[in-house]
Amino acid sequence: MSNVHFLREPTPANHEHNERRRDLFARAETLSQDLARRGAELDRLGAPPREQIEALRQAGLLSALHAPEVGGGGLSWVDGLRLVRIIARGESSIGQLLGYHYVNSQYVYWAAADQKQAWVLGAETVERQLYWGAAVNPRDPGLTLERRGGHYVLNGRKTFSTGAHVSDRINVNAAIDDKIANFVVPTDRPGYIANDDWNNIGQRLSDSGSVEFRDFPVYERDFILPLADPADPPAVEATFNTPLIQLVFVNFYLGTAEGALASALDYVRTTTRPWVTSGVSSASEDPYILERIGDLQASLKASVALADTAAAAVEAALAQGRSVSAEARGAAAIEAYAAKVHATQVSLDVTTRVFELMGARATAANHGFDRYWRNVRTHTLHDPVAYKAREVGDFVLNGRIPEVSLYS
Amino acid sequence: MSNVHFLREPTPANHEHNERRRDLFARAETLSQDLARRGAELDRLGAPPREQIEALRQAGLLSALHAPEVGGGGLSWVDGLRLVRIIARGESSIGQLLGYHYVNSQYVYWAAADQKQAWVLGAETVERQLYWGAAVNPRDPGLTLERRGGHYVLNGRKTFSTGAHVSDRINVNAAIDDKIANFVVPTDRPGYIANDDWNNIGQRLSDSGSVEFRDFPVYERDFILPLADPADPPAVEATFNTPLIQLVFVNFYLGTAEGALASALDYVRTTTRPWVTSGVSSASEDPYILERIGDLQASLKASVALADTAAAAVEAALAQGRSVSAEARGAAAIEAYAAKVHATQVSLDVTTRVFELMGARATAANHGFDRYWRNVRTHTLHDPVAYKAREVGDFVLNGRIPEVSLYS
Amino acid sequence: MSNVHFLREPTPANHEHNERRRDLFARAETLSQDLARRGAELDRLGAPPREQIEALRQAGLLSALHAPEVGGGGLSWVDGLRLVRIIARGESSIGQLLGYHYVNSQYVYWAAADQKQAWVLGAETVERQLYWGAAVNPRDPGLTLERRGGHYVLNGRKTFSTGAHVSDRINVNAAIDDKIANFVVPTDRPGYIANDDWNNIGQRLSDSGSVEFRDFPVYERDFILPLADPADPPAVEATFNTPLIQLVFVNFYLGTAEGALASALDYVRTTTRPWVTSGVSSASEDPYILERIGDLQASLKASVALADTAAAAVEAALAQGRSVSAEARGAAAIEAYAAKVHATQVSLDVTTRVFELMGARATAANHGFDRYWRNVRTHTLHDPVAYKAREVGDFVLNGRIPEVSLYS
Amino acid sequence: MSNVHFLREPTPANHEHNERRRDLFARAETLSQDLARRGAELDRLGAPPREQIEALRQAGLLSALHAPEVGGGGLSWVDGLRLVRIIARGESSIGQLLGYHYVNSQYVYWAAADQKQAWVLGAETVERQLYWGAAVNPRDPGLTLERRGGHYVLNGRKTFSTGAHVSDRINVNAAIDDKIANFVVPTDRPGYIANDDWNNIGQRLSDSGSVEFRDFPVYERDFILPLADPADPPAVEATFNTPLIQLVFVNFYLGTAEGALASALDYVRTTTRPWVTSGVSSASEDPYILERIGDLQASLKASVALADTAAAAVEAALAQGRSVSAEARGAAAIEAYAAKVHATQVSLDVTTRVFELMGARATAANHGFDRYWRNVRTHTLHDPVAYKAREVGDFVLNGRIPEVSLYS
Repeated sequence: MSNVHFLREPTPANHEHNERRRDLFARAETLSQDLARRGAELDRLGAPPREQIEALRQAGLLSALHAPEVGGGGLSWVDGLRLVRIIARGESSIGQLLGYHYVNSQYVYWAAADQKQAWVLGAETVERQLYWGAAVNPRDPGLTLERRGGHYVLNGRKTFSTGAHVSDRINVNAAIDDKIANFVVPTDRPGYIANDDWNNIGQRLSDSGSVEFRDFPVYERDFILPLADPADPPAVEATFNTPLIQLVFVNFYLGTAEGALASALDYVRTTTRPWVTSGVSSASEDPYILERIGDLQASLKASVALADTAAAAVEAALAQGRSVSAEARGAAAIEAYAAKVHATQVSLDVTTRVFELMGARATAANHGFDRYWRNVRTHTLHDPVAYKAREVGDFVLNGRIPEVSLYS
Repeated sequence: MSNVHFLREPTPANHEHNERRRDLFARAETLSQDLARRGAELDRLGAPPREQIEALRQAGLLSALHAPEVGGGGLSWVDGLRLVRIIARGESSIGQLLGYHYVNSQYVYWAAADQKQAWVLGAETVERQLYWGAAVNPRDPGLTLERRGGHYVLNGRKTFSTGAHVSDRINVNAAIDDKIANFVVPTDRPGYIANDDWNNIGQRLSDSGSVEFRDFPVYERDFILPLADPADPPAVEATFNTPLIQLVFVNFYLGTAEGALASALDYVRTTTRPWVTSGVSSASEDPYILERIGDLQASLKASVALADTAAAAVEAALAQGRSVSAEARGAAAIEAYAAKVHATQVSLDVTTRVFELMGARATAANHGFDRYWRNVRTHTLHDPVAYKAREVGDFVLNGRIPEVSLYS
Repeated sequence: MSNVHFLREPTPANHEHNERRRDLFARAETLSQDLARRGAELDRLGAPPREQIEALRQAGLLSALHAPEVGGGGLSWVDGLRLVRIIARGESSIGQLLGYHYVNSQYVYWAAADQKQAWVLGAETVERQLYWGAAVNPRDPGLTLERRGGHYVLNGRKTFSTGAHVSDRINVNAAIDDKIANFVVPTDRPGYIANDDWNNIGQRLSDSGSVEFRDFPVYERDFILPLADPADPPAVEATFNTPLIQLVFVNFYLGTAEGALASALDYVRTTTRPWVTSGVSSASEDPYILERIGDLQASLKASVALADTAAAAVEAALAQGRSVSAEARGAAAIEAYAAKVHATQVSLDVTTRVFELMGARATAANHGFDRYWRNVRTHTLHDPVAYKAREVGDFVLNGRIPEVSLYS
Repeated sequence: MSNVHFLREPTPANHEHNERRRDLFARAETLSQDLARRGAELDRLGAPPREQIEALRQAGLLSALHAPEVGGGGLSWVDGLRLVRIIARGESSIGQLLGYHYVNSQYVYWAAADQKQAWVLGAETVERQLYWGAAVNPRDPGLTLERRGGHYVLNGRKTFSTGAHVSDRINVNAAIDDKIANFVVPTDRPGYIANDDWNNIGQRLSDSGSVEFRDFPVYERDFILPLADPADPPAVEATFNTPLIQLVFVNFYLGTAEGALASALDYVRTTTRPWVTSGVSSASEDPYILERIGDLQASLKASVALADTAAAAVEAALAQGRSVSAEARGAAAIEAYAAKVHATQVSLDVTTRVFELMGARATAANHGFDRYWRNVRTHTLHDPVAYKAREVGDFVLNGRIPEVSLYS
């Protein structure tokens, strides 16, 4: 299913990097297979994924993208997004959570005014294998910060905060007077409430319910940026969370679709009966089943190849650091958004059509084979794909880069 | 349109390689643009492409894949196939011809029993910038070789021989008694007749008419292999022409589709009027036009990314040389065939739908915008795509590698 | 949503027919709307639909196709299948159950050797508004009949028997010695066990679990045909249950898809927020939402038009009675199977894409909007659609009528 | 291919109607088959279709929709549009021309202020089997009328006037002062010039080049309406030409696609060779060919069923005459526009995919099998299909009827 071995990797700086990389991928594969075995049951329960985040932690996957200097895995974004895909093959929500964490925990490196602060946060994250969440959805404002004595208190509610119950650290945007505050806080301070109100048809383990802050204390040292005017554009580098989070989407959609196809292949091999008028003695020889598998595989491979290509483009732009131009960021983001358009179509198509390989009995509820479609159907609505296609078209036709936002 | 810059290239052995590479790509781009300007007219004429092959020759593109040691460009197959794509953007048949030549002229390196012979042929090809064709279609047998005196004579007819009028050298399979002979001959010997009977709805410059051999002399030295029993399987390495020629197809289909989209974008920018009820003042701002461009671009990019990934896979297998296993060849070929399935769908879709961007007046015959569809519609029938999808499915489901043939 | 008013109805024999017809359609509409309001909840419970079958009974819908002479509604099959569609808009399983009942309860008119027996069964069905099921799936043999004293006993198990808990009468096929017995029995005799083992991802109210017969008594008078040799072909007229049950499928798939679109339209009108970069003040004015609705509506309308046309074709063939030829039956069945191919694609597409109209919050589990897709995804696997397409192709290309079976 | 026999026809007023109807359909079938035999050649020539219009004339097809009272065929619009479909199976442009004539020659019955004038024009049309064209395209203004002495003179140019060389009568809109004049004129008056400038990739026989009027005389008696203010809305009845011309499009697209499939089936039966790895001895038994035919047939049948349903809807609204409301016209037009959306997709898909049934050799230019795609590709751009889908969506979601224009 994977084309990892066909893409030429960057020449390793050293042997150690390769070892670490191989280990991380191997652990991700093992974890993914464990998740796949329990996927139907976990989906039914839909509980906060404490145990699964713990498994990511134990496997060292939460620090895979941090620098080796602080003990991290030192992987590239291309590799990190592949890990998301691998985990999503086993369980879609856990893939999503890993990817969100990567973006949230790397964000401080691009955004923090003081790089030392970023490295301190990073070192702590690696050491304690912390999970990072966020409360920043711009369609759902509602957090306000006020000064109280020598510090601040945060109040308000966010309707959707992925990983609400499992986050150790959280990126927050909040209004203070007519400014915007950006800070990172631990969730074990008093006044952080993760509600049990995530109950959707898909991504049921993603723990995306509401969070509330009630007089939650925030200190000067938590701020990663000076208070900003909402009208001021952020630094270009600080806006890479959007193309990267979109690539997280792409990769966990594709991982989920790969998982659906893998389950279906297994079912066809072991369980599907040949059709009465097929003239073949085994479903595995049915001409239509074989052709459709080929067709789905071709679409998946194309989408995966684009996902990797787009990741490399975004990573290359990000590597320019503070000097990256809005144009370079925009052009790279367009790669990611094209990948998003394609992965959306492919993952919906694959997760619907795998049933045609397996046949009627595969709809028994105990298999839970509908979860793949429910998972991609749910999250591919995050922002309307028509507008992503439009942005790609506008760039290609008119050379216009997407307006920066938490959606673009 | 190109994602060349996002794929990490092999670390160059030296500066010279990079220079040569940059030059070859630059010349291909220039040539492609020249072809695009004259594309509609060339398609109408549908004459043998003597002038266009001459231009490839002048640009050094015919020896781009030969080793630098004999004066060639030293490019990888991944790069060679990209050159095919670039040329096909300008004119689909010329892209096809370049790709066929690459496979035909490299074939001797894998197949010739005596590597010295291959290198002599290669050196001559580079020096004189020879164009290589073939007469080997297995669905259309009909060439027989007989001993006559100290040499042989070849007689018979092949219905389709791409580049019939422009080939300097030609790979031939012919029956002799109950054996198969494999040889390479120059086409300027007496008895080689290229007929003017190629008149199809697409690939009109591909010069794919019939050839006849009338007592055409063949000498021992022309043989690249000993006479073979038709039942004996060829060496695995000698069968890489099939996945590579399929990748040639993939890349000239995608190049053609990229050319179609580029023309359409140009037309939308300069000519299309905004629709009466669109509420926008320029077709370039029409919401449906923008979204469809984004959609087509996403599909094209995915298919191109897979084409490059598959090329790298086939090249890696081929690099194993004589030691390559049938399994490794089969697994790599499956990558190419998945790319074929995808590129077929995408190129047909793009070349049909670009008209919806441009509007009704774009159907004026002088633009010749239908040639893109006619070109891909014609050649994508080379072998039925359903059977390629089936082979991919059979590999994915049952681990079965495709049976080796000139189609697989 | 309905195009009922555009199809020219047969000239009514009399005013009464029209009144009855209008009443039945009006009651079906009311019932459908009631079901729609409770659809999400009913799907969650997935209990045997006793209450819903009772509602069909009260509305007189169970006898809509019986002759007015015995108090039935006197509707045509075209109309009966429209009623199935209307009910399925509200709840897919109940549409399925109504359609199955129509075929099962009409079957005796075509199949019974003695028409008097058919009319007696029909009169009783109308009077008591009985619901008819069946236990005849040929992929799942397993019922055996033995003589015991002056009667017979039936033993065995059928894995899937739609309406198992709610059937009053049941058509049964069973093996006796080396013959096949066909009979109709009431389910309230001792030894009929409907198990609670239907738990699938869709059609959760269809009550399609297993049934067992344990020394269930069967009498001579229950037989509708003499014992038959399994090799003997049934009378052509007696094989119309297959094209008709396939049309039941078609119509409840389309009804389900219409229900999905209707829910989505309602949600867009009341709940969906305009997208941030759409430039419109209401989701109802979003250009992409409007276009996609038009697109889905066009597909649905085409599929519905074909469903009605095919129903008329099958009904016309059936109207030839005992004299109907295998060719006429085959040609009409092909219409139904073409409709099946189309409705399968359209219903899957519509039930997936309606989410794109509504946006991300529509995935909240309480709406249960995924049930439409789960319903059509589940039942469209009844028999592989590729083989139905193949049968249509074989007829169109080769003039071959489908081989008669419970699938064709 | 036809489902004519499955749609219940209106009860005939008399036996004569049925006879006339049968004759007209039989003559259309014969003519269609003649056209099909010469289709490839006629397409290559692309000359004004004088001979073909003469054949329609001889067959009495030009007056098929006129009332029997004046000697016409008395057919319904549903039937007239089926005749368009039948003729388009043979040759797409001739189907287009027949349909345009029906709308242009019936237009006066709805629009003329004086019904006597309409009947006089109609009687003459029937008697002399006149062909009617039009010069009314609103995207291309440019005709001006001036008083000169006791009459008027018309000057100007229309870029596209279908049937320019073959029209006997022509509906014209022209500006006079600040008013709009509507009149009908014979084309044999001095000053009518049909140019030979129609040269497009498809509909090459449709004779859709430019016309010029140079001091072309127009008389009071030619006017069918008083001079109108451009701001005044026309009578609702007079606007039925738009939904009807759109249904003409629908039916000649579908006829063209039916013709493409019929040719392909013939080719598969007689010429296509079985694929080497198919394991079947005849292409007619290839599993993928059979399935694809079934798939294409199902789509075509659905689209044809909707075309007929929509035609009945528009005809029913038109039958309300002067009393028809804008709402009734709008609702019926939406049926036609849904049919347009569907037929556009289906006809493009069928005309592209038939090649996959036939195989590579079917691309030989002498077959001209690409003309079907070129024909539908050309005309389906008449007005952007996305905006038709949008209109359908706006009606379904918001209850808004399309704004009246020559496109809606």
